[in-house]
Amino acid sequence: MGVVVPLEEKPVDRLIAPLVKLVAGDMTRVNQTILSRTGSEVTMIPEVANHLISSGGKRLRPILTLATAGLCGYEGGGHVKLAAAVEFMHTATLLHDDVVDDSEMRRGKAAARMLWGNEASVLVGDFLLGQAFKMMVEVGSMQCLDVLSSAAVIIAEGEVMQLSAAKDTETTEDAYLAVIRAKTAALFAAACEVGPILAGRSKAEIAACRAYGANLGVAFQLIDDALDYGGSSAKLGKNVGDDFREGKITLPIVLSFRRGSQAEREFWRRTLEKGEIGEGDLEFALATMKKHRALEDTIERARHYGAMSVDALELFPASPWKQALRDAVEFAIGRAH
Amino acid sequence: MGVVVPLEEKPVDRLIAPLVKLVAGDMTRVNQTILSRTGSEVTMIPEVANHLISSGGKRLRPILTLATAGLCGYEGGGHVKLAAAVEFMHTATLLHDDVVDDSEMRRGKAAARMLWGNEASVLVGDFLLGQAFKMMVEVGSMQCLDVLSSAAVIIAEGEVMQLSAAKDTETTEDAYLAVIRAKTAALFAAACEVGPILAGRSKAEIAACRAYGANLGVAFQLIDDALDYGGSSAKLGKNVGDDFREGKITLPIVLSFRRGSQAEREFWRRTLEKGEIGEGDLEFALATMKKHRALEDTIERARHYGAMSVDALELFPASPWKQALRDAVEFAIGRAH
Repeated sequence: MGVVVPLEEKPVDRLIAPLVKLVAGDMTRVNQTILSRTGSEVTMIPEVANHLISSGGKRLRPILTLATAGLCGYEGGGHVKLAAAVEFMHTATLLHDDVVDDSEMRRGKAAARMLWGNEASVLVGDFLLGQAFKMMVEVGSMQCLDVLSSAAVIIAEGEVMQLSAAKDTETTEDAYLAVIRAKTAALFAAACEVGPILAGRSKAEIAACRAYGANLGVAFQLIDDALDYGGSSAKLGKNVGDDFREGKITLPIVLSFRRGSQAEREFWRRTLEKGEIGEGDLEFALATMKKHRALEDTIERARHYGAMSVDALELFPASPWKQALRDAVEFAIGRAH
Repeated sequence: MGVVVPLEEKPVDRLIAPLVKLVAGDMTRVNQTILSRTGSEVTMIPEVANHLISSGGKRLRPILTLATAGLCGYEGGGHVKLAAAVEFMHTATLLHDDVVDDSEMRRGKAAARMLWGNEASVLVGDFLLGQAFKMMVEVGSMQCLDVLSSAAVIIAEGEVMQLSAAKDTETTEDAYLAVIRAKTAALFAAACEVGPILAGRSKAEIAACRAYGANLGVAFQLIDDALDYGGSSAKLGKNVGDDFREGKITLPIVLSFRRGSQAEREFWRRTLEKGEIGEGDLEFALATMKKHRALEDTIERARHYGAMSVDALELFPASPWKQALRDAVEFAIGRAH
C-alpha cells in the first residue's frame, strides 16, 4: 500500500514527483482510510478489494482531489474521505469492467474475477460503491454528494454507451469522445471539483478545477489508448495490443480506419468486428497505424486537451500547487514517449 | 407499468389491498419518477431497466416508504423520490444477483442477462444505483442519505456473505439469519425508516418504523424460502425447487439437514454441495422436508418476526395507515398458504 507511484527510472515520473510530494501527508491518511474502509467481518471483501487496491495503481484520482483542495487553501479534513471515496468509485468500476470485458489480467496481476469469480467482483464492487457514498455522507457536503452521485450515473452511462458501440469500426471520433468523457473524464472532473467546493470557493474557481479535471481525464484516456499500441514508438512490447485482441475501438483505430484504404478497412472489420485475429495481424495493425500517423495524432489530440486543462487553472495565482498540477498534465501526456 | 399488485384471485391479496389503495395516488407519481429516471440517451439503459421494472414486481418496498411516511403524517413530496430510489436499489440488486447466480429467469420472464448479456446487467445496475443516490441528494436529507447508503453497504456485505457460505449444508440458522437480515431486511428497514425521518418524527418513532421494516423483511424472506418449495403444501408446482436446483441453502434446508438422519444428510450433501441432482431427488427433498416439518416451521419462524413487526408499530395511535401496515404483515406471511 505504501508506494503511490511506482518509481521506475522514467524521466516522465519526475513531472509527477512534485505533486506526489505535496500531497504525501494527506495521502498517508487516504491510504489508511482506504484500508480501514475495506475492512469487513466478511473476509472475502477485504481480500478482493485489497487485491486490486494494493496492486500499485497510481492513485491519480485521489491525488487530484487532495491537490485541488490544496490549491484552494482548504484547511479541513473532508478532502481525505472524499479522495478515498473517489478511489473506491474508481476501483468499483475496474472490478465491474473486468466482468464486462472478461479480462484475465489487471495491472499485471490476475484480475479479481479469475481468483474469486465474477460474483465476487460484482458484489465487492457494489460494497465499495456503497462505502464511497457512506464516506461522502460523513463529510456532509450535499453539493459534493451531488457532484459525485452525478458522476456515478454518467460513468455507468458511458460504460453502457461503450458496450452499445462495441466493435463498430465506423464509430466517429465524436462518438468515441462522448464515451471517454463519460467513462473516464467524468470522475477526473468530479475528483477535482469537490476540493474547491469544500474550500468554499467561487463558482468560477469550482468550474475551473472541474474543467482542469475533465480535460486532463480526456487527455489521460487518449494517451492510455495510444500506449496500448506502444505509444509513439508503436513497437511490440509487453502488453501491447490488448485493446486490439479485445476488439476495442479506440481513437488510434478510429483514425486508422477513416484514413485507410478499402483493403485496410476490411482488415479492421475482420480483426475487430469479427474477432478473427491470426499471426502477423497485430504487426500489420501497428504498421498501418504508423503509416497513417494514428498514434502520433492520438497523442496530438491529447495535447490539445492537456492545453485546455492547463489554461483552465490560469485564473489561480502562482503557487507550488498550481505548478505541480500543470506538471501533472505534462506527466499524463509524456507517458506516451 | 400500471399494475402494481398482480390481481390474481387469491384471498391473501385482500390483505394488501387497503395499503395499495392508501398509497395509490403517491404510487402513480413513483411510477412516473421511475419511468423518467430510467430514461437515457443510451437506449440500452431504459430497455434493460424497464424489462425488469415493468415485469410486475409487487413494489412492496416503495409502498412501504410511502405508507410509513403516511403513518407519520408527512405532507411534503420527498417520499416519492425516496420510494423510487428504494425501488432502484432493489432493481440494481436483482440485476447483479442474476449475474451472480447465473439465473436464466426472473419474475417469469427471461433474465435481462439472457437478453442483453451479463455486461448490460452489471452496468445498468450501476446506473440505477447512481440514479438512486442522485434522487436522494435531490431530496436533500442527509439523515436519509445516511440510512440508505448504510443499507447499500450492508446489502452488498450480505450478498458476499451468502456467496462465502454458499453450498454449505452445515450453515447454522443464526448464520442464515445474518445473511437475510443483511441482504433482504436491511432494505426493508431503510425503506420504512426514511418516511418518519422526512416527517421529523422522534427517535423512538423512527426506530419503531425501522424495526417494523426489518422484521417484516426477515418474515418476507423466510416465506419466500418456504414458497420456493411450494409453501405449506410442499407440493410440486410451477417454479418449485429453483433454490434446490441452484444449491441454495435456505432455512427449510437448514432445518431438514439438522433434523435428518445420516443418510438424509448425505442426500443433502450430494444434491446441494456437489450439485448431483437426478430424477426423483426433488420429490425426495420435498418428502423429507414434510417429514421434518421444515416448511411449517419455517413459516412458524416467519410468524415470530411478523409478530415483532406488528408490535413495533404499537406506539402509534390507531389509524387506517397503521391497520393497513399490520395487514401487510399478514399478507407477507399468508402467501405461504
